[in-house]
Amino acid sequence: MNKIEKIIRDLNAGNIDTFTALSSAVAKAGSEDAEFIRLDHERDRRCGFPEFIYGAGKSVDQILQIIPKLVEKDVPVLITRLDQATGQILAEKFPIGKYDSVARLFVIQTSKTTKRRGQVLIVAAGTSDAGVALEAKYTVELCGCGTKLICDVGVAGIHRLFAEADQLSAADVLIVVAGMEGALPSVIGGLVKCPVIAVPTSIGYGTALNGFTALFGMLSSCASGIVVVNIDNGFGAGCAATRIINAMNLATTPQ
Amino acid sequence: MNKIEKIIRDLNAGNIDTFTALSSAVAKAGSEDAEFIRLDHERDRRCGFPEFIYGAGKSVDQILQIIPKLVEKDVPVLITRLDQATGQILAEKFPIGKYDSVARLFVIQTSKTTKRRGQVLIVAAGTSDAGVALEAKYTVELCGCGTKLICDVGVAGIHRLFAEADQLSAADVLIVVAGMEGALPSVIGGLVKCPVIAVPTSIGYGTALNGFTALFGMLSSCASGIVVVNIDNGFGAGCAATRIINAMNLATTPQ
Amino acid sequence: MNKIEKIIRDLNAGNIDTFTALSSAVAKAGSEDAEFIRLDHERDRRCGFPEFIYGAGKSVDQILQIIPKLVEKDVPVLITRLDQATGQILAEKFPIGKYDSVARLFVIQTSKTTKRRGQVLIVAAGTSDAGVALEAKYTVELCGCGTKLICDVGVAGIHRLFAEADQLSAADVLIVVAGMEGALPSVIGGLVKCPVIAVPTSIGYGTALNGFTALFGMLSSCASGIVVVNIDNGFGAGCAATRIINAMNLATTPQ
Amino acid sequence: MNKIEKIIRDLNAGNIDTFTALSSAVAKAGSEDAEFIRLDHERDRRCGFPEFIYGAGKSVDQILQIIPKLVEKDVPVLITRLDQATGQILAEKFPIGKYDSVARLFVIQTSKTTKRRGQVLIVAAGTSDAGVALEAKYTVELCGCGTKLICDVGVAGIHRLFAEADQLSAADVLIVVAGMEGALPSVIGGLVKCPVIAVPTSIGYGTALNGFTALFGMLSSCASGIVVVNIDNGFGAGCAATRIINAMNLATTPQ
Amino acid sequence: MNKIEKIIRDLNAGNIDTFTALSSAVAKAGSEDAEFIRLDHERDRRCGFPEFIYGAGKSVDQILQIIPKLVEKDVPVLITRLDQATGQILAEKFPIGKYDSVARLFVIQTSKTTKRRGQVLIVAAGTSDAGVALEAKYTVELCGCGTKLICDVGVAGIHRLFAEADQLSAADVLIVVAGMEGALPSVIGGLVKCPVIAVPTSIGYGTALNGFTALFGMLSSCASGIVVVNIDNGFGAGCAATRIINAMNLATTPQ
Amino acid sequence: MNKIEKIIRDLNAGNIDTFTALSSAVAKAGSEDAEFIRLDHERDRRCGFPEFIYGAGKSVDQILQIIPKLVEKDVPVLITRLDQATGQILAEKFPIGKYDSVARLFVIQTSKTTKRRGQVLIVAAGTSDAGVALEAKYTVELCGCGTKLICDVGVAGIHRLFAEADQLSAADVLIVVAGMEGALPSVIGGLVKCPVIAVPTSIGYGTALNGFTALFGMLSSCASGIVVVNIDNGFGAGCAATRIINAMNLATTPQ
Amino acid sequence: MNKIEKIIRDLNAGNIDTFTALSSAVAKAGSEDAEFIRLDHERDRRCGFPEFIYGAGKSVDQILQIIPKLVEKDVPVLITRLDQATGQILAEKFPIGKYDSVARLFVIQTSKTTKRRGQVLIVAAGTSDAGVALEAKYTVELCGCGTKLICDVGVAGIHRLFAEADQLSAADVLIVVAGMEGALPSVIGGLVKCPVIAVPTSIGYGTALNGFTALFGMLSSCASGIVVVNIDNGFGAGCAATRIINAMNLATTPQ
Amino acid sequence: MNKIEKIIRDLNAGNIDTFTALSSAVAKAGSEDAEFIRLDHERDRRCGFPEFIYGAGKSVDQILQIIPKLVEKDVPVLITRLDQATGQILAEKFPIGKYDSVARLFVIQTSKTTKRRGQVLIVAAGTSDAGVALEAKYTVELCGCGTKLICDVGVAGIHRLFAEADQLSAADVLIVVAGMEGALPSVIGGLVKCPVIAVPTSIGYGTALNGFTALFGMLSSCASGIVVVNIDNGFGAGCAATRIINAMNLATTPQ
Repeated sequence: MNKIEKIIRDLNAGNIDTFTALSSAVAKAGSEDAEFIRLDHERDRRCGFPEFIYGAGKSVDQILQIIPKLVEKDVPVLITRLDQATGQILAEKFPIGKYDSVARLFVIQTSKTTKRRGQVLIVAAGTSDAGVALEAKYTVELCGCGTKLICDVGVAGIHRLFAEADQLSAADVLIVVAGMEGALPSVIGGLVKCPVIAVPTSIGYGTALNGFTALFGMLSSCASGIVVVNIDNGFGAGCAATRIINAMNLATTPQ
Repeated sequence: MNKIEKIIRDLNAGNIDTFTALSSAVAKAGSEDAEFIRLDHERDRRCGFPEFIYGAGKSVDQILQIIPKLVEKDVPVLITRLDQATGQILAEKFPIGKYDSVARLFVIQTSKTTKRRGQVLIVAAGTSDAGVALEAKYTVELCGCGTKLICDVGVAGIHRLFAEADQLSAADVLIVVAGMEGALPSVIGGLVKCPVIAVPTSIGYGTALNGFTALFGMLSSCASGIVVVNIDNGFGAGCAATRIINAMNLATTPQ
Repeated sequence: MNKIEKIIRDLNAGNIDTFTALSSAVAKAGSEDAEFIRLDHERDRRCGFPEFIYGAGKSVDQILQIIPKLVEKDVPVLITRLDQATGQILAEKFPIGKYDSVARLFVIQTSKTTKRRGQVLIVAAGTSDAGVALEAKYTVELCGCGTKLICDVGVAGIHRLFAEADQLSAADVLIVVAGMEGALPSVIGGLVKCPVIAVPTSIGYGTALNGFTALFGMLSSCASGIVVVNIDNGFGAGCAATRIINAMNLATTPQ
Repeated sequence: MNKIEKIIRDLNAGNIDTFTALSSAVAKAGSEDAEFIRLDHERDRRCGFPEFIYGAGKSVDQILQIIPKLVEKDVPVLITRLDQATGQILAEKFPIGKYDSVARLFVIQTSKTTKRRGQVLIVAAGTSDAGVALEAKYTVELCGCGTKLICDVGVAGIHRLFAEADQLSAADVLIVVAGMEGALPSVIGGLVKCPVIAVPTSIGYGTALNGFTALFGMLSSCASGIVVVNIDNGFGAGCAATRIINAMNLATTPQ
Repeated sequence: MNKIEKIIRDLNAGNIDTFTALSSAVAKAGSEDAEFIRLDHERDRRCGFPEFIYGAGKSVDQILQIIPKLVEKDVPVLITRLDQATGQILAEKFPIGKYDSVARLFVIQTSKTTKRRGQVLIVAAGTSDAGVALEAKYTVELCGCGTKLICDVGVAGIHRLFAEADQLSAADVLIVVAGMEGALPSVIGGLVKCPVIAVPTSIGYGTALNGFTALFGMLSSCASGIVVVNIDNGFGAGCAATRIINAMNLATTPQ
Repeated sequence: MNKIEKIIRDLNAGNIDTFTALSSAVAKAGSEDAEFIRLDHERDRRCGFPEFIYGAGKSVDQILQIIPKLVEKDVPVLITRLDQATGQILAEKFPIGKYDSVARLFVIQTSKTTKRRGQVLIVAAGTSDAGVALEAKYTVELCGCGTKLICDVGVAGIHRLFAEADQLSAADVLIVVAGMEGALPSVIGGLVKCPVIAVPTSIGYGTALNGFTALFGMLSSCASGIVVVNIDNGFGAGCAATRIINAMNLATTPQ
Repeated sequence: MNKIEKIIRDLNAGNIDTFTALSSAVAKAGSEDAEFIRLDHERDRRCGFPEFIYGAGKSVDQILQIIPKLVEKDVPVLITRLDQATGQILAEKFPIGKYDSVARLFVIQTSKTTKRRGQVLIVAAGTSDAGVALEAKYTVELCGCGTKLICDVGVAGIHRLFAEADQLSAADVLIVVAGMEGALPSVIGGLVKCPVIAVPTSIGYGTALNGFTALFGMLSSCASGIVVVNIDNGFGAGCAATRIINAMNLATTPQ
Repeated sequence: MNKIEKIIRDLNAGNIDTFTALSSAVAKAGSEDAEFIRLDHERDRRCGFPEFIYGAGKSVDQILQIIPKLVEKDVPVLITRLDQATGQILAEKFPIGKYDSVARLFVIQTSKTTKRRGQVLIVAAGTSDAGVALEAKYTVELCGCGTKLICDVGVAGIHRLFAEADQLSAADVLIVVAGMEGALPSVIGGLVKCPVIAVPTSIGYGTALNGFTALFGMLSSCASGIVVVNIDNGFGAGCAATRIINAMNLATTPQ
């Protein structure tokens, strides 16, 4: 370990600055190199949820290389944005997992997940938003939080929303998924006290701008305190909800 | 008038085609030339409302030249998008008229306007949308239709809207004015049967995109059969409402 | 029904506010749950036309699940944005219906549709705009209004438009469909008195911007009182026309 | 209160539809009409924070009309986006309040604000982001939460950030404010467990696109579970943080 | 022909307005109705070139219907934007024509084309711009003008351009085709006297923005008097060049 | 001149490469250095019109430095985009010139300008387009071509256009200026044979996009062979028209 | 060679200007014409690297025509943006070359490449950026520079970057490749002294805007002196790095 | 310094994770806190140039606070984007400095600047680009490199560029500044071997898009290996050139 000793000596002698000292001291601990991939096994400890895999733009081979590394550590596996064909290959190779063709993701549960107190209610404006809403639901579940999904309660038939008022007010965190004009979070945000995470979807055509109209509408909402994630980013909304549920759990934990 | 005779003879002889014949026959009847302006006095007969003047980009001199020509024919005068300074000059020169500093327009009523049956209800989401809503109101009134304005009933406090349900269902045509995410027409469009004209406003900042987010949201609305006009175009919405009220009046007129 | 009694008591006692009272009282009457879909059978009563189905982004399975529910209630069926393959499956399963490959929609008429007085004339600028124009035509017909379609009368050969002047002036409502620069509604809007609904189409390339140039041109039209719907939204234009025809019918109905 | 009772009974008996029930019942309770403004005094109960006033686009007169109504109810006053001139008028008229020229807002504290447990740390990337960061800070304080501000720790000198690691890990909620490329939330999001609310600012020129580059960068962040508000929307970030702190407080309250 | 006569007399007498005159008079002369298509056989006389057919968005059936109508009148046939498959069908059905797979168009020459004096030189910046350049070349040839094509003389090896200086200065009209940054017309425009028509192409990726960067660069050119057509619009450039050659021919024709 | 001779001989002998040849040879002939400005006195010979000065972004000092250099050579002076204040300074310093406050340019005629045969007709859709149209008119006149201006004949009152049919068909080149939806060139392009140069203006608001909607509409025009210049670029249109008139004059000149 | 003599005589006589003289003297030396392609064999001498071939938009036939011309001159061959199918055809036809399916390019080394002193370190933020990074690596290698690639060290796990601090500080030039929010160059640019070339990639979805968010973020970077190339342009980054390494080599070469 | 030692030993022993190590160790060395500003005095050592100050968005007070801190350390002062008024205040307070009204910056030289070998040639396309070019020039000079500026050699009169060929080929690094279509770097990049840094400027109107057209054109350049900085970012180009000159100096330094 004379490398470390040398760094310390250099630092003490003023040959290197503190930043160089530390940088060169940091070993590769906590990240593991595949050819093009460095898994970040410390992420759970740092951020409160494990490193999930964004499937789009990765080859089947790369994914087949990653999964065993994760399974071996007994962490939950969530690979998003997989087409049907890749999904079926994974489902065959790893029968302990499951491919969901609406959410377009592959998931392997693990018994080690800590259960967290708190309920995340996911509300989707239209039938076509179900895939994104489900991606959020799987993410929240894998992180150990309770969750429920309500579908097709868009603002053009607003009584359908009011019929679910009980559930809205019982939730600890709301994830609201909507495409087209994305008005649902504005209406809900004006009705509830709890954190509201809005997810725009790419549903719609023409001026829906592949989700940008919903995104911009949600960001410009006249209801205060609504927060937003990227278009179709059910996974990100799930992570954000988990961060909040984590904070709530920490608040009630004697430390 | 031998010019006309010559055209007819040429046409009959096959020397000119029918289009050339007619084009060269059309006198300048119905349009009147100022230096840079041709007033179109037939417009009322053709389109159902007189030629209003878009004030932005016109000099005070040009406007001072136009008004007497209109007053002389006893047609209503509506000059939109005038700043305070120009407005005051006009109000002084033409005391029969009035400058409205919220709507930013100058108006001269005329007793000759035909009253039309039918009520246009104008609903504005926020206080800051009042100027655009008033521009619509003046337009509708000048065209002889009944009208009323409800302000500050945006979707973030949606009970304020429901409190006006009676008025919503009594209207013949609705003009719904909203900025920011522009969600109000979607909610209203799902509640009422009558024609709904949505007017996006440039209220908001950042992702409100100077009214484009509201515009695109209204065009992408999940409520069916909503129609839209340009950003801040209260005048256009008023004209469109007048076209509909006209159609309703014609439908009930024995012909 | 003690649930309702409890709400009323809580409300009277001031334990809950009026909005909570009503929201929790609203039963699920009027909406029917499939797994991801809540059909809104009250929509006809509220808005004047039944709930049509936006086919894009729905699976064949979902659509096959929906149709019988609609047929059973004897409401007209209109499913838009269906590709040829899906269209043929539907046509085989439901031989009472019809798939139109130009309009890309599936339709089942019902004898129960109320006939409405009033004629909607649909004008399409170019041959390639015919699909969108037909979508509008089917919508208007299903709602019980009279309708006619004129094709290929774009502004680059403007005499073709004037040749149809009789029909233009006889219409109660005009739907004008155009792609590329979308100039047709401006010209027509300057010629007629009746309501004009402009539909931009995605026909064109490069600077036509998939219909946005036509859309923006129509919204910026120098002809006053033109209203606009989303790009390629023949269905929305049809609904808007129906709202106007409805208003005209109501105006002539002794109430 | 028998009116409400009657409606609920009618609804239950099927005499009226759900929407008529809702609509005709809602009294104007909780909203108060000025000429163009309806204050929404119930908002605190519904959403967990009072109705603040967005100052841009309101006249001084309108604002002078609003403040006494709020003061009278002893609710905190926060009016955002006020220029220096308006700010000084308010400070003179209402000496119990204060105008902050960096944050460009006017504020009147109230002793009635409930203190909430929980610390919101606000981190600003550059000196020029201080105004937006301060807007967030005032909002959070008015809602009764603890808060602290760290400035000028952008990623181009990343050791400045690490020097504040203790504070980062002690926070319950983080608000991260950055303009230009907006990279700070990505770096912080990879380091902490708690909820991270990113606020893009309009600082920068050219490709910074008035804050859209920072906004899109934050939404596209490779760090998971970051949520975003509108450009320069320090107020919205403060409200969102308050919603989370509320949830944490509720979680620890025996119910 | 007395119908026209009557209209003109009525107009003159003030019995009808100018528009009614025009509209009711125009017979369907010069346009011929297929189901969705009205061919405009007068266009050559009005505009100086025949009506070409934009192939994209038309079905093979529609095209097969059109060609015989054109052939029968012995006008040249040019159908642009045809894929390989459609092209081969046409080449088989109409062996007097030819499909060019680089230009992606189908063409049938006619012996009746009037030859025009004047040379149109087409210059393409890169190899990949050849298709668009050829579309321009076929158009110009069909209109009876002389033409020549020079390829791959982009600004990154500017001596290749200077080597063709003789040809540049001998041309009557220049069509300059370029993608990517589209700088070639600026350089050429600074070297020659004759009309320069710039055609941006969609060649390039990322910031080339599918041709918009070249388009905007050409429109913003520091060389004066350059004119521009739509992206990839070789056909339009050819028509514009023909308009100019026409004007030059007319100028030299004793009238 | 032996320097050039030597270079050409070296090049021919292969002693130097082609670019070195070009580069080392070009003397500063034809360009004259002010501190930041190199006037290009050969431009007239190369391009057919003198070097005009784009006034925006130049200081009054810079402009005062340039004018005498041009006057001294007895070339015409045209400085565009000058505000009123600068214009008046120039008019005082150079009383032989004239500032036009509508066209916002300063001009000094010269008796040396060669007269060219040929008439450029400039047509402006609306009153507010007059400034841009006048910029084109001054440019064309300074280049020695005949020109005339027709104003306020937009498509919303299309009979005003037809009333000018004689003039349209008599022109050698048309410059058509329009803002808002920019539809006028499409209509005119379908009626005339001669070259049509379309100039979009920034007149309009909201979806007019500061002239981009007109620009894109003109580029997407369904009328073939229309060419376009930058937004508000009356000067560029004038130069392009001059290039065409030049070509026509050359065609009739015995060479 | 009397052509040259004639030019010289004309020049001396003042019949032609110097530019025309030189232009017409320039032979086609240094460029070689295929049908649509002019290879620019002088480019290496002028710019420091050979002419590579942009494969997209070229047919297999065109490419098969080009390669032998390059091989024959013994210059390195690099053809970028080739799909798998074309790549395999080339690999079969030219077994001395190699197709890389991640970088999507075909390469033929040549023994003649001059080795240059200097090390280009390529750093890629994520696994999905590897293709672009490899394109840069091949380019740099073909130009004779030393190079190394580090992958998957994005800012969301920033310790992975610090672990490579030694390599960062040892590099002569850095190429930093990143998609999504593109924050990596900002962080690295704040840590190192050497030239940093940032390459945005199109990895990401929604607000990542196909690479524009990364591009704009890099251009707006708060770290000074970072330079940027087009989206996914690994090749351009490689050329830029070579230009710098060239300059460094020249600086150390006794001249 | 034993604190750092302890951290490194703990890290080595696995008692703490890598990030905690880094974070808790970094002292505030090298950054100095003003109220909202942390000057980064180590930047010169890390990046090779001192921390300059971006003046836009900073108040005069903030700037007056910063300058003495920099002067005191005897580092050069460069404050960019200052309006005339602020510039004059600074020039009065700090007579050792100088405000340049074209470059819009304030500068204080220091005798301590190390001279670097190497010449940076700055080329500006037009007169109006001079301000940005000068910003680059001041930056390069303050960093101790040689520099020269050539103005007004845009591509529309390309012989003006060739006249400067000697200087182009003598430069070690080129900074090329251009607005409008931004074609100059493409032409120059095809002529020279050395690194070329392109700077787009916001000069131009309409389709010049405030510099985005030049930016995108430069990034899409057909000349390989050109690198680009933000619009109007003369300062950034100067820093990038300095990074390259640094690398060249290091390459020739015995190490």
